[in-house]
Amino acid sequence: MKAKNPFFVKIKNAYINDICAILGVEKFKKNSIINDIKDLNNANKNEISFFNSIKYSDFLKKTKAKYIITNKKYKNLFNKNHWPIFVDNVLLSVSKITEFLYPDSLNDAVDLSLCAPKKKDYKKVKFGQNVLIGKKVKIGNYTLIGHNSIIESNVSIGSKCIIGNNVIIKNSILGNNVRVLDGAVIGKKGFGFFPEKTKNTRYPHIGMVIIDDNVEIGCNNTIDRGSLSNTIIGKNTFIDNQVHIAHNVNIGINCIITGQVGFAGSSKIGNKVSIGGQAGISGHLKIGNNVQIGGGSGVIKNIPDNSKVMGYPAKDIRKFLKENK
Amino acid sequence: MKAKNPFFVKIKNAYINDICAILGVEKFKKNSIINDIKDLNNANKNEISFFNSIKYSDFLKKTKAKYIITNKKYKNLFNKNHWPIFVDNVLLSVSKITEFLYPDSLNDAVDLSLCAPKKKDYKKVKFGQNVLIGKKVKIGNYTLIGHNSIIESNVSIGSKCIIGNNVIIKNSILGNNVRVLDGAVIGKKGFGFFPEKTKNTRYPHIGMVIIDDNVEIGCNNTIDRGSLSNTIIGKNTFIDNQVHIAHNVNIGINCIITGQVGFAGSSKIGNKVSIGGQAGISGHLKIGNNVQIGGGSGVIKNIPDNSKVMGYPAKDIRKFLKENK
Amino acid sequence: MKAKNPFFVKIKNAYINDICAILGVEKFKKNSIINDIKDLNNANKNEISFFNSIKYSDFLKKTKAKYIITNKKYKNLFNKNHWPIFVDNVLLSVSKITEFLYPDSLNDAVDLSLCAPKKKDYKKVKFGQNVLIGKKVKIGNYTLIGHNSIIESNVSIGSKCIIGNNVIIKNSILGNNVRVLDGAVIGKKGFGFFPEKTKNTRYPHIGMVIIDDNVEIGCNNTIDRGSLSNTIIGKNTFIDNQVHIAHNVNIGINCIITGQVGFAGSSKIGNKVSIGGQAGISGHLKIGNNVQIGGGSGVIKNIPDNSKVMGYPAKDIRKFLKENK
Repeated sequence: MKAKNPFFVKIKNAYINDICAILGVEKFKKNSIINDIKDLNNANKNEISFFNSIKYSDFLKKTKAKYIITNKKYKNLFNKNHWPIFVDNVLLSVSKITEFLYPDSLNDAVDLSLCAPKKKDYKKVKFGQNVLIGKKVKIGNYTLIGHNSIIESNVSIGSKCIIGNNVIIKNSILGNNVRVLDGAVIGKKGFGFFPEKTKNTRYPHIGMVIIDDNVEIGCNNTIDRGSLSNTIIGKNTFIDNQVHIAHNVNIGINCIITGQVGFAGSSKIGNKVSIGGQAGISGHLKIGNNVQIGGGSGVIKNIPDNSKVMGYPAKDIRKFLKENK
Repeated sequence: MKAKNPFFVKIKNAYINDICAILGVEKFKKNSIINDIKDLNNANKNEISFFNSIKYSDFLKKTKAKYIITNKKYKNLFNKNHWPIFVDNVLLSVSKITEFLYPDSLNDAVDLSLCAPKKKDYKKVKFGQNVLIGKKVKIGNYTLIGHNSIIESNVSIGSKCIIGNNVIIKNSILGNNVRVLDGAVIGKKGFGFFPEKTKNTRYPHIGMVIIDDNVEIGCNNTIDRGSLSNTIIGKNTFIDNQVHIAHNVNIGINCIITGQVGFAGSSKIGNKVSIGGQAGISGHLKIGNNVQIGGGSGVIKNIPDNSKVMGYPAKDIRKFLKENK
Repeated sequence: MKAKNPFFVKIKNAYINDICAILGVEKFKKNSIINDIKDLNNANKNEISFFNSIKYSDFLKKTKAKYIITNKKYKNLFNKNHWPIFVDNVLLSVSKITEFLYPDSLNDAVDLSLCAPKKKDYKKVKFGQNVLIGKKVKIGNYTLIGHNSIIESNVSIGSKCIIGNNVIIKNSILGNNVRVLDGAVIGKKGFGFFPEKTKNTRYPHIGMVIIDDNVEIGCNNTIDRGSLSNTIIGKNTFIDNQVHIAHNVNIGINCIITGQVGFAGSSKIGNKVSIGGQAGISGHLKIGNNVQIGGGSGVIKNIPDNSKVMGYPAKDIRKFLKENK
């Protein structure tokens, strides 16, 4: 599901030398326009990106981005197509530039434009009592929005969806035939910030949550939106109650995620993955296709395709069961 | 607490050969009426049941059900009192028959009949602001329903109960003097379905949640209703915040369940069981009476009466502490 | 942040011999007024306290309290400045005396005095739709209260705070610039009671939740108020989604608590502590300053300053990783 992000408004006419000024680094001889900030994988030629971990060296080789915020210690990894911008703290710099390009991105206040939906705008949608919706919300035909639920501005919901009661959806795009059960909170900012002595600096989160067709999201789930890229739940994936999905997590198609599972930020889960109750997946991991993760497991490293793992830390399930007979 | 299930409407005059037609199996010579579908333990003579695991062989011996949906591999376990119906996928067949008998059982949409309670119908009940209740809701005297709470049609709540704010209750029967704290969601369908390539098939859940006298249910709990049988919380059991209880779980009397504990489906917990924070109980287990389960434990097998266990997987607590000194 | 507790009303003119009568113990020759009941650490001269664990012997030596409810087995620890009151069940006695001094302390019903906020009382506060607030609620300038949120009587919220949607706050004092995200429930009674055969006896909880400046509380968090003392979250501490904090927990300044972490009652967490997702902290522990606790850990003993731990039970992180290579 490809979707344009309608949630954060970018300034016009941002130039690379404006960015250099903000970062306090030397300007380029030739000033050029910068259209956006994206990760290496998604950035286009006139977009700025960043490099902050050896782990992503492959993306660095293939990226279309020219201007890349990084640290001097990585300088040997760059080639002549790159125009690296060296800073001390890469992520703090990315945060500043994101905020410069998207001046509203740190405003995570409540959407005070909400009001009761107008029947004429949603002729084939059914609404419960006390529903509040924002501006420019799109809702497909035959979708039902439960009592007391809140749908913030610009959210898009497909057709034949059932949104439960007390649900909150913001900064999200939902496909068709999606079910979101009671009390779920979808699309708030991720838990990203720079710890500081007296007042932490929040990281702007300009990504969305994308939920594809036929997905079910359980009661009291919390699914945070992405920071630069998006949090994505693939087609026909079913998620049980009280699951927490942090920013930038990507879950594939046909997955089964049982109750109280937690995902730390930026992990990528394959297709047909099943995860038992209360398991936890650390951040920035890659879980392959057809993986089965036993209940209660703590996964702290990548898992190849077709594996069955269990334990804390998670290991081959046969090994785990043998050791614990 | 015995209670009739008022939530799902059964079709009248269902015959065994209608069922055979749906399952694509040979019809019986003598057609007879089928009153309901139940598990082996609860089924009566004119009710259909199913057998899908060696684990339940004892129930098979004792069941009053005559017609039993099963798989050919179990055929030697049946005697001449049984009239087994052989299918490839037992649970999928049970699902189809349940849906046939209860045509509304897959409709888990929001209850749109809700409205503000009428004072004259509930003279001795106190209501907070914005409460929504369905049709035929029974509420005992001196019970209090908190702000923004939703009580769906046919729910029954005893006397002297306190239901908190933002609570959602459906398909449930509550005894007297029960407390349900803020944000709990009780009685939604369980997390049961048949994974399929492009669109999972949901399992109909026609059970209820039964909560007996003097129980306390913590904030933001999620308690799913049963599939065929019921999810039951016994008298005087207290449950802390953020606990998840899956479908068909039975919890005994006088239990103490602390924060963030999770129960997978169909486990049976004895009386006077105490479970420490964040512990998880796998599905289809039997936990005895007077069992103590340490915080953080992962229980993956049955636990006999009077045991103290801890660890992941849970073992004798002295062994766990000794091994981890 | 020092704050007076405005939530529970104390009776006037309580005397020590009234208390003796309630506990069924011999009266003192000289009757004297008792101003309050507090833990050893906080009690003043005319306040009654209690001693129930060797662990708190140091507090016994230093306490200003004279009358101390305790058990005979501890009698040798008392000196001539103490006037111990010997009972069989210390906590049950404390519970009875707390209820005697604070007759409303067991009433945890919904606050039915709530109504829509009056603009004239909160000129510089912004409110979403359907907000309900109690009597004598204080809200600082430029604070925003989200849709459907409930602020119960006597709660105090500082300036420049953002309270999300569907939030419930009771018995709590919040500093300035605090953010509470959607669905959090703050200030309900702790999970404390005396198990009894047919009906548990609830423990009165007369403490508050104190949340200091610049704190962030994640979505669907549950933070219980203290029993005698308070539950405290220190300045600039950030807490992710679905975290559960039990009664009397003290969390220091500049901590980072990630998703689904759970704290059992009365633990004291230092400053600059970071805790990974799904970790659990047992009750009555002391976690030092600058401690790092890995995701999924189960902490069951005190952790000294500057430690890095992981595992269940938690141990030195290098040891954990080495043992699990």
